[in-house]
Amino acid sequence: MPTPFFSTHQQLLNDAVEAIAKRGYWSAFPEIPSGKIYGETANQDGKAVFESQLNRSFGLSLPGTIGKTGSERSPYGFSLGITYPKVDLNWLFQSITTAQEAWRSAGPETWAGVCLEILRRLNRRSFELAYAVMHTTGQGFMMAFQAGGPHAQDRGLEAVAYAWTELSHIPRTAYWEKPQGKNEPLKLQKNYRIVPRGVSLVIGCSTFPTWNAYPGLFASLATGNAVVVKPHPGAILPLAITVETARDVLLEARLDPNLVTLVSHDFNDNTAKELALRPEVKLIDFTGSSEHGVWLEKEAKGALVFTEKAGVNQVIIDSTDNFAGLAKNLAFSISLYSGQMCTAPQNIYIPEGGIDTAGGHLSFDQVAQGIVDSVNKLLEDSARAVEILGAIQSETTLIRLEKARTLGKVLLDSHRLVHPQFPEACIQTPLLVQLSLQPEDYYTQECFGPVAFIIPTENTDAALSLARKVSQQRGSLTFSIYSTEQSVLNAATDIAADAGVALSCNLTAGVYVNQSAAFSDYHGTGANPAANSALTDSAFVSNRFRVVQTRIPV
Amino acid sequence: MPTPFFSTHQQLLNDAVEAIAKRGYWSAFPEIPSGKIYGETANQDGKAVFESQLNRSFGLSLPGTIGKTGSERSPYGFSLGITYPKVDLNWLFQSITTAQEAWRSAGPETWAGVCLEILRRLNRRSFELAYAVMHTTGQGFMMAFQAGGPHAQDRGLEAVAYAWTELSHIPRTAYWEKPQGKNEPLKLQKNYRIVPRGVSLVIGCSTFPTWNAYPGLFASLATGNAVVVKPHPGAILPLAITVETARDVLLEARLDPNLVTLVSHDFNDNTAKELALRPEVKLIDFTGSSEHGVWLEKEAKGALVFTEKAGVNQVIIDSTDNFAGLAKNLAFSISLYSGQMCTAPQNIYIPEGGIDTAGGHLSFDQVAQGIVDSVNKLLEDSARAVEILGAIQSETTLIRLEKARTLGKVLLDSHRLVHPQFPEACIQTPLLVQLSLQPEDYYTQECFGPVAFIIPTENTDAALSLARKVSQQRGSLTFSIYSTEQSVLNAATDIAADAGVALSCNLTAGVYVNQSAAFSDYHGTGANPAANSALTDSAFVSNRFRVVQTRIPV
Repeated sequence: MPTPFFSTHQQLLNDAVEAIAKRGYWSAFPEIPSGKIYGETANQDGKAVFESQLNRSFGLSLPGTIGKTGSERSPYGFSLGITYPKVDLNWLFQSITTAQEAWRSAGPETWAGVCLEILRRLNRRSFELAYAVMHTTGQGFMMAFQAGGPHAQDRGLEAVAYAWTELSHIPRTAYWEKPQGKNEPLKLQKNYRIVPRGVSLVIGCSTFPTWNAYPGLFASLATGNAVVVKPHPGAILPLAITVETARDVLLEARLDPNLVTLVSHDFNDNTAKELALRPEVKLIDFTGSSEHGVWLEKEAKGALVFTEKAGVNQVIIDSTDNFAGLAKNLAFSISLYSGQMCTAPQNIYIPEGGIDTAGGHLSFDQVAQGIVDSVNKLLEDSARAVEILGAIQSETTLIRLEKARTLGKVLLDSHRLVHPQFPEACIQTPLLVQLSLQPEDYYTQECFGPVAFIIPTENTDAALSLARKVSQQRGSLTFSIYSTEQSVLNAATDIAADAGVALSCNLTAGVYVNQSAAFSDYHGTGANPAANSALTDSAFVSNRFRVVQTRIPV
Repeated sequence: MPTPFFSTHQQLLNDAVEAIAKRGYWSAFPEIPSGKIYGETANQDGKAVFESQLNRSFGLSLPGTIGKTGSERSPYGFSLGITYPKVDLNWLFQSITTAQEAWRSAGPETWAGVCLEILRRLNRRSFELAYAVMHTTGQGFMMAFQAGGPHAQDRGLEAVAYAWTELSHIPRTAYWEKPQGKNEPLKLQKNYRIVPRGVSLVIGCSTFPTWNAYPGLFASLATGNAVVVKPHPGAILPLAITVETARDVLLEARLDPNLVTLVSHDFNDNTAKELALRPEVKLIDFTGSSEHGVWLEKEAKGALVFTEKAGVNQVIIDSTDNFAGLAKNLAFSISLYSGQMCTAPQNIYIPEGGIDTAGGHLSFDQVAQGIVDSVNKLLEDSARAVEILGAIQSETTLIRLEKARTLGKVLLDSHRLVHPQFPEACIQTPLLVQLSLQPEDYYTQECFGPVAFIIPTENTDAALSLARKVSQQRGSLTFSIYSTEQSVLNAATDIAADAGVALSCNLTAGVYVNQSAAFSDYHGTGANPAANSALTDSAFVSNRFRVVQTRIPV
């Protein structure tokens, strides 16, 4: 019997299913961190819960616990001091195997109902999640709330909607009657059982722990699999809260909570690979480095592997009727969360002869300077700047930043900003470096962090060819073009299709290339090396379960 | 502009889409080789065409032709003497790359229209295809007509219907308007372009060259990919006819015929691997040995690989109210096309204490003897027997048969039959061997051909456990149970779900476990080692294309 959760949330599911079919604007979870929506005390309550979690062990009891792990440090300059259960994998997987039995046969309504209830409860914990995301990833509060909370929840819901849709296409029974001329027809009753793949491993990243994990987590759970969540050692808390919420819901539904578990581990140990190679693991969702992603794609033979890896995002400036808007838009895209986004622009191609604008021709240097000025203006108020920039998540990003200074002509140097509340936070303004086309090495790989390269090309055609080559060879998640010529936009559209990368045209106002909206934008295409799948589409869910049929003569 | 083919066949497509949603009985292409359906002279015309093809070069002109290949031999005892173009792969792929451009952007209606027209024309060539299939695979005429013609065409249509359905779920455009409180909403036009993966390689097998190739071929073509067909060197003709038909249709649609090409090659050369590793190849559909299938799954990193490999199909006899029907049904399943079917039963488990039947208790030996008697009765008229058995396709099957004689107690020996029309044909009646549970090696691997093993088990529970283990370890495509107890049938249903294998219950009449009906039966589950995918479901098509979006501010 399905849990009551399904009927409670059926309308929400129907709306989400309609949304993915239309792909216009739709959202289930409000993105505004307002007391009017989330309750007048929601912010202070969420903050209080976050603070109460610091310097103690997180309240999650897991089978196979053999110790503690956890050494997260807020990029805002303090240790979280939170410990999480360290588990014995053999013991844990034994418990998961036991848990799976009832879940596998519970069916789509129960799977969806449980997922939807988890999402609803996560939504109510959005402020707590915001502080958890902020102090593990270094995102500014607003982004941590939105991307870590409602936007991630929307992505989770989107995955549930796709799963539900795919499952709905399979009839549970069929009556088959084949005519035999004058003889009695052949008659069979056929039953089609949905058989989940098994255990799904979700490998989280350090910058968007919830947003990047929820699609895989909910796609797998909504198709009847058990889910093991392996957070990045630097960003455990947001996923620990998520797993805790899921386990609470499962318990209330009288299901085994071990269907959703957390494997926290120390930095630089072998846990991810060990998990990936376990025979029980049949699905892996990964966000992270190309090195690890490619390893999984090649070596985790027993599992279907969905990856989002590194990429080089590119911008071509051909011409514009709104140069101020262009520069402002790009400045924000470069600055937002210090470029620590898989969608942030990195390479900006400008014709060496300059561009035409509504205000007349601008030389290459004028265009570059316009972007530099716009970044400076955006970040001139340091109180506002720190909210946009957030803090640097990882030491290696600082090392990359330092090295990037030496690669070409520095158009805008990076400097440290002091956060009024968190003086220890590591905050850096973006670095803009002009590179020439040779050597290619610098700009044909991802330079993750607050770095953008401004690169002169012979003309726009040359930039288009280069963009295609880089996307095809190294992968990209986003591609942006500015042009007043329809023929150029058309050419860019064709290049984007060839390179398998999402294109944005002439963004000069409040939409940024970095942003990807659930229910409307396909995040990633699976058609270039930056990702082998999209979040979220049919292909992302349809192979997480199989159909096993039974034929019975009537 | 879509070709007129789409509007011509739109109703057919709609009917097929409806059929896959309901999965009751439906067929588009009549399976009866009757002159009333196919035209009074269809049989003699098809035969005449087949005979005119013998001992000459097949009329297919392909780019990059550098010589000839082809040494097919009819299992009915004569060389076909047909040669096919041998192509230079670099040259061929250059032509394919050129051909792809217009096809990629032609869109779903053109893709579907071309596929449907190809299927319609293949249907009109069903008699010609029947003789081609008969004299490459060794199937009897009736099976060659049905499985090689209409049933294969239905499977192709099923793939087109799935492709069309998946493509239909993606809107081509969306208007996205996000409210911004009191400010102007954000407004974007979004366009979603379907981007085919690239070149699809279809690797055919020697026993069902069309039936096993059409799902992949049409799934890829209907999602905008180019298709390279690589037939088994022993069964080129049916796929050469298929490729010829496809190229004719493409030409008429003013599309480049090189979207569908044929790579014939000599026995035991390296062509399959060379093709699989080409960078242009993004999709591979394979039917054949586990060794080659696993190699592709592991080594063809650049492509999505769909495989159907070897398996061990099992039957459990627990009890029956119709032992005569059981024995007759099994006898036919074992004999049909000499067990050269991926779905043919191999291991028959019988409780050592015998079984209960409507006519009283039967001992193990009585049950085994009942099956032996039934095979003898089925095949006593050798004119009829040769039509059921067909001829042995491959020398290695004869070697396996010879070896199987030595593995246990021979309950029914195999003997050669002489075909009245084809005295040189290699026709063998089935071998039934009783094995004990130890050693396991003999019955835990596929013994492809006219061999069945009868194996005593302690009881039905033991047989169920064994069946699960063998399916999980070695893979199975079919599983059959006979029982009058609902609890046993339920247990078998659960075992089948665990083992990811299709179950048939109590088949005693005109439906056989070997048979798999398009639009209703999922052939393979993708959930055990016998296949990594099903023919055909959403997962089989949804990843053959990707979606690339463009966002434009409004």
